[in-house]
Amino acid sequence: MTRFLLVVDISATIVFALEGGLAGAKAGLDLLGILVLAGATALGGGIIRDVLIGAIPPQAIRDWRYPAAALLAGASVVVLDRSIAITPPIVLIVLDAAGLSLFAIAGAQKALVYELNPLMATIMGGITAAGGGTIRDVFLGQIPAVLRTDIYATAALAGAAAMVGARRLGVSPPVSAVIGGVLCFTLRMVAVWQHWNLPKL
Amino acid sequence: MTRFLLVVDISATIVFALEGGLAGAKAGLDLLGILVLAGATALGGGIIRDVLIGAIPPQAIRDWRYPAAALLAGASVVVLDRSIAITPPIVLIVLDAAGLSLFAIAGAQKALVYELNPLMATIMGGITAAGGGTIRDVFLGQIPAVLRTDIYATAALAGAAAMVGARRLGVSPPVSAVIGGVLCFTLRMVAVWQHWNLPKL
Amino acid sequence: MTRFLLVVDISATIVFALEGGLAGAKAGLDLLGILVLAGATALGGGIIRDVLIGAIPPQAIRDWRYPAAALLAGASVVVLDRSIAITPPIVLIVLDAAGLSLFAIAGAQKALVYELNPLMATIMGGITAAGGGTIRDVFLGQIPAVLRTDIYATAALAGAAAMVGARRLGVSPPVSAVIGGVLCFTLRMVAVWQHWNLPKL
Repeated sequence: MTRFLLVVDISATIVFALEGGLAGAKAGLDLLGILVLAGATALGGGIIRDVLIGAIPPQAIRDWRYPAAALLAGASVVVLDRSIAITPPIVLIVLDAAGLSLFAIAGAQKALVYELNPLMATIMGGITAAGGGTIRDVFLGQIPAVLRTDIYATAALAGAAAMVGARRLGVSPPVSAVIGGVLCFTLRMVAVWQHWNLPKL
Repeated sequence: MTRFLLVVDISATIVFALEGGLAGAKAGLDLLGILVLAGATALGGGIIRDVLIGAIPPQAIRDWRYPAAALLAGASVVVLDRSIAITPPIVLIVLDAAGLSLFAIAGAQKALVYELNPLMATIMGGITAAGGGTIRDVFLGQIPAVLRTDIYATAALAGAAAMVGARRLGVSPPVSAVIGGVLCFTLRMVAVWQHWNLPKL
Repeated sequence: MTRFLLVVDISATIVFALEGGLAGAKAGLDLLGILVLAGATALGGGIIRDVLIGAIPPQAIRDWRYPAAALLAGASVVVLDRSIAITPPIVLIVLDAAGLSLFAIAGAQKALVYELNPLMATIMGGITAAGGGTIRDVFLGQIPAVLRTDIYATAALAGAAAMVGARRLGVSPPVSAVIGGVLCFTLRMVAVWQHWNLPKL
C-alpha cells in the first residue's frame, strides 16, 4: 500500500475509534468495554471486507499499527472525556464524514485490486465504511444505524460507486479516489445540514 | 456448478431476499435498510458457509448474479408492496419452505465437495439455510428465530442429514438431493400445518 | 497439535458448551436452540480466531471432535438439568475460569504459530476466550458480558499477554502457557471473590 493510502486509512481508523469509544463511554461501559467498542468500530468494517475478498489475515490483524491506533484512540476517550464533551458537534460530524469517505474509497479500491466485479466493489466500499459501526450498534443492543439513519451508508455507497465508475471510464486511481471521496463527503454533509432522509414505505 | 444448481440457488436467494425486504418494510426501515436486510437474509447464510469451509472469496461475492438477484428482489418489495400484502400467507410459507430446502441441500452438498466430515456437512446445510435469517433477526434486535421457532432449522438439518447419509450409502448426488430436499420441505410444511414444536425444558 | 493441547482444548469446549446450553435453557429455548447456543458459545471464539489468522477451514470445522464435544455437552444440559441446578455455583465458576484460561492460552499460542505480532496474539487470546460468549449474548439480545462485566475478558487478555511476553523472553512454550494460564485463572477467581470491577467513566 502506498504511504498516502496508509495515512488516510490510519486517520479514518482513529476517527472511528474515537466515535466507538465515545459510544461506549455514553453507554456506561468499563475501560475494557470502551476499548473493545473502539476497536470493533474502527477495525470491524475493514476486517469483514478483507475476509470477504480473501485478503486473509486481514490488514488490521497483520499490521500492528491499526490495532495500536484504534486502542490508543479508544484509551484517549477516557483521558480526553471532558475535552470531547466540549467539542462542538460539527467538528465530530465533519471528522465522521471524512472517515466515512476515506473508508468507502479505500474499501472499494482494495476490492478492485482483488478483482471483484464493480457491483461488489461498490458494496465493499459501503461495508468498509459502515461495517464497524454496525458491529458497535449490535453490541449495544441497537438496530444498526445503517438500517435506519438517513444518508449515511448511502453516501458511502454513492462515493464508492462514483470511484468504481470513474476507474471503468479510464480515470486514474488518485483522481477517481478524489471524485468518490468528495461526493461521499459532500452528500453526507448536505444530508446532515438539510436533514435529508431516504423515503420509507 | 451445474446449471441446475445455479438455478435453484438463485431461486432460493430471491425468495429469501423478498422475506428479508418484507421484514425491513414492516420494521419501518428506509430504502437502503430494506436492501441491506434483503441482501443479508439472502446471502448471509451462504457467505458464512463459504468462509467457514474455505471457499474464499464466497460465491455470493465473486458472482455478481447473487447480489444482483438479492438487491432486485429487495427493491421489488418496495414496488410490489401492495401485491405482496394481498398474497395469501400460504404462498409465502410454501416459497419459504422451498428456499429453506434448496439452501439446506446446496449447503451440505458444497461442504461435501470441500471434504468436510458428515457431521459438519450437515451443520453447514443448516447454517446455509438459517444463517441469513439469523443475521436479519440480530439486525432487527430480535432473538433469532433459529433459537426459538419450532421446526425450521430442524427441518433444514434433517434434510441435510438425509442427503449426506444417502451420499454415504452410495446414492447418486441428484437422488440424494431430492431425498433431502423433499424431507426438509415436508417436515417444514407439516410442522406449520400441525403447529409442531420441539420440546422445551 | 500435541495430545496435551487437544485435551485442554476439548475440556474448555465442553465447559463452555455447558454454559451456553444452560443460558439457553434459562432463556426458555427449545432443544435446537439449546444446542445452537452451546455450539456457538463453545466454538465461536476459536472459529473467529481461526478465520482472522487465516487458519481456514477453522479447526472446529475440520475436526469432528470439537462439534461432537460441544453438541454432546449441550444435549447433556437437557438430561442433567436437575443435577446442574443443584451444583454449587462455585463449581461452575471454577470450571468457567478454567475454560477461560485454557482458551486464552490456546488462542494466543496458535496466533504466535501463525506469526502474528505480540499485540495481535494477545488480542487473539482474548477473542478465543470471550468470543463465543459474546455471540451467545448477542443471540440472546443482551449487551455482551465482555463489554460490561468486571474482570473477565481482562483476565483472558492479561493471561495471554503474560504468555506472549514470556515467549518473547525465551521461556519455553509449556512454561509460558502455565504462567499465562495461572495468571488468568487467579485474576478471574480473585475478581469474583473480591467483586473487582474495572473503573467506569
